[in-house]
Amino acid sequence: MKAYVFHGPGQSAWEDVPDPGVREATDAIVRVDAVTLCGTDLHILKGDLPEVRPGTVLGHEAVGEIVDIGGDVRTVRPGERVLVSCITACGRCRYCREGTYGQCRGGGGWILGHLTDGTQAEYVRVPYADLSVHPLPSTLDSKDAVLLADIFPTSYEVGVLNGQVRPGDTVAVVGAGPVGLAAVATARLFAPERVIAVDLAPARLDAAKRLGADAVADAREAPEQLIADLTGGLGADVVVEAVGVPEAFELCTRMVRPGGHVANVGVHGEPATLHLEDLWIKNVTITTGLVDTYSTPTLLRMAATGRLPTGQLVTHTFPLNHMEEAYDVFARAADTGALKVVLGEEPHEEVVPYQAA
Amino acid sequence: MKAYVFHGPGQSAWEDVPDPGVREATDAIVRVDAVTLCGTDLHILKGDLPEVRPGTVLGHEAVGEIVDIGGDVRTVRPGERVLVSCITACGRCRYCREGTYGQCRGGGGWILGHLTDGTQAEYVRVPYADLSVHPLPSTLDSKDAVLLADIFPTSYEVGVLNGQVRPGDTVAVVGAGPVGLAAVATARLFAPERVIAVDLAPARLDAAKRLGADAVADAREAPEQLIADLTGGLGADVVVEAVGVPEAFELCTRMVRPGGHVANVGVHGEPATLHLEDLWIKNVTITTGLVDTYSTPTLLRMAATGRLPTGQLVTHTFPLNHMEEAYDVFARAADTGALKVVLGEEPHEEVVPYQAA
Repeated sequence: MKAYVFHGPGQSAWEDVPDPGVREATDAIVRVDAVTLCGTDLHILKGDLPEVRPGTVLGHEAVGEIVDIGGDVRTVRPGERVLVSCITACGRCRYCREGTYGQCRGGGGWILGHLTDGTQAEYVRVPYADLSVHPLPSTLDSKDAVLLADIFPTSYEVGVLNGQVRPGDTVAVVGAGPVGLAAVATARLFAPERVIAVDLAPARLDAAKRLGADAVADAREAPEQLIADLTGGLGADVVVEAVGVPEAFELCTRMVRPGGHVANVGVHGEPATLHLEDLWIKNVTITTGLVDTYSTPTLLRMAATGRLPTGQLVTHTFPLNHMEEAYDVFARAADTGALKVVLGEEPHEEVVPYQAA
Repeated sequence: MKAYVFHGPGQSAWEDVPDPGVREATDAIVRVDAVTLCGTDLHILKGDLPEVRPGTVLGHEAVGEIVDIGGDVRTVRPGERVLVSCITACGRCRYCREGTYGQCRGGGGWILGHLTDGTQAEYVRVPYADLSVHPLPSTLDSKDAVLLADIFPTSYEVGVLNGQVRPGDTVAVVGAGPVGLAAVATARLFAPERVIAVDLAPARLDAAKRLGADAVADAREAPEQLIADLTGGLGADVVVEAVGVPEAFELCTRMVRPGGHVANVGVHGEPATLHLEDLWIKNVTITTGLVDTYSTPTLLRMAATGRLPTGQLVTHTFPLNHMEEAYDVFARAADTGALKVVLGEEPHEEVVPYQAA
């Protein structure tokens, strides 16, 4: 089969590799019908994640059809259409028993396209299939569904739920890339008073407005002052960090009100400064997290009934074998305007922007 | 009357000042029978809190008798013995309505000995008396009660409750001064598997053992390795920071397990480094806070029935007019072994160490 293989920093290719097969009785083999690229894949290509070994097939998000299963798989059968989640779960360890599958100690967690071969391929072997793939409603388009493999549960669980967004809240989302935009959309499920998106790129701020942001702010123009003005000087109830750089995190801690929450979603590569000399007295809660995907079944039901604008984040589609072109478009997002890039057998010619209610 | 007056950094004295009187209809005047010194008072004397104006009477913890009240005070009468809480609450603002009295926006919060004259005096004016003093059970000794004005609710709310200590947890307390020791004692209320205290001073680690710590560790000898060894490499479920310096906070973030909590109680004067490059993926929750004192009535009931070892933290007692001597003993804690220093009319000659069950 063909797959996108990482060969070390700066080296990768769409090339021939052996077909995967069932190795453990809990495995499933999935034919990939739709796959998407993640900013984390770009980090791997840069060499930021040294634990990824050369020779690994990248990708941790897919929709496809089960073509083979091991003898212990109970919840899916060959021929079923499934979502391949970014998180694999053994279901038996302490963390899985508590629903925190992202921290699985039994061989799961984020392993696809990280510690084992991933989804940017014609076929993928999914370990612990019972807890790691989700049967898909027939009404849900693959392009819409594939965004539920990672970014929607990530934004929802690690941003909105960890941040404890509640009705009437002022919510600030710093970073209006795909994950930040999904945070804007899922924060709205809790009837906040207002959602404010902060970014550097006008095109991304426009996308945030389409996804339901009530106001937007340029990150260079003291957005903490806008938040203060809107909240009687208090600050935001919840601030979601969806960038992954120290400056963005530090901005979040200046935007939060006393008693508020900062939910970090961004993938960070270096330390930030925590201004405890200001924050010690402010009753703030700061959370970090890798997604657990406990919310994925719920989000799938909501997407199937049109309650989540998942596919609206897809700006570009390609056939699967145009992987290298897709990476190029995705990596040059500042020029191409790319948000999510989806590859597979159902290319869409046009994307209708989501109109918030 | 006599009071301990701050005259600017490095300048303070026990001296004559005018008697306080009722100014607002919600005020009470309390005759001080017992008062204690807080590490925060030392910060003020050093000039670390520039908002404290020269001329301010210090102190935010006391036990005494109501001698006068304003016309709107409903819950206490002259002659009643009360605890003067470190937190004053208007009861009407958004924060008070949510029970977060420490963040009061109506003129309360931490004001005594900070923004208005405090308790290190023969008499003190307590604004918003209805929500800011607590009638005392007759069975509760003043020396035991006065530790409920600040350090016990602080350790309990900002450390143990914010940290969400649960049965079976491994709890690490970094810093075994009075607040850390109170965190050790109140963490035990939740039946943790073990409580480990970390400090530099052997005498304080001994005190931690007396208050119920199952193990102690020298902060210079890689206590994170001890925690890892005790928890199968995972880390502590809850880590309480009770020091207030960057190194201690950073140690806490190295000791916490994935999915665990770091509860900052320490008063910080400078920023810390937050290693988001390690923490982003670990599902940690970091909380900060000033005490709200919503737990004070409960803690008072528990202390009155012998369920809290409050008085065991008192190492030195003095008559009230020995204030300057008491400050000297307290400031030289490393030499004198001082934990809490109590002044008032009931000096105790000996202190029986608390024996944990």
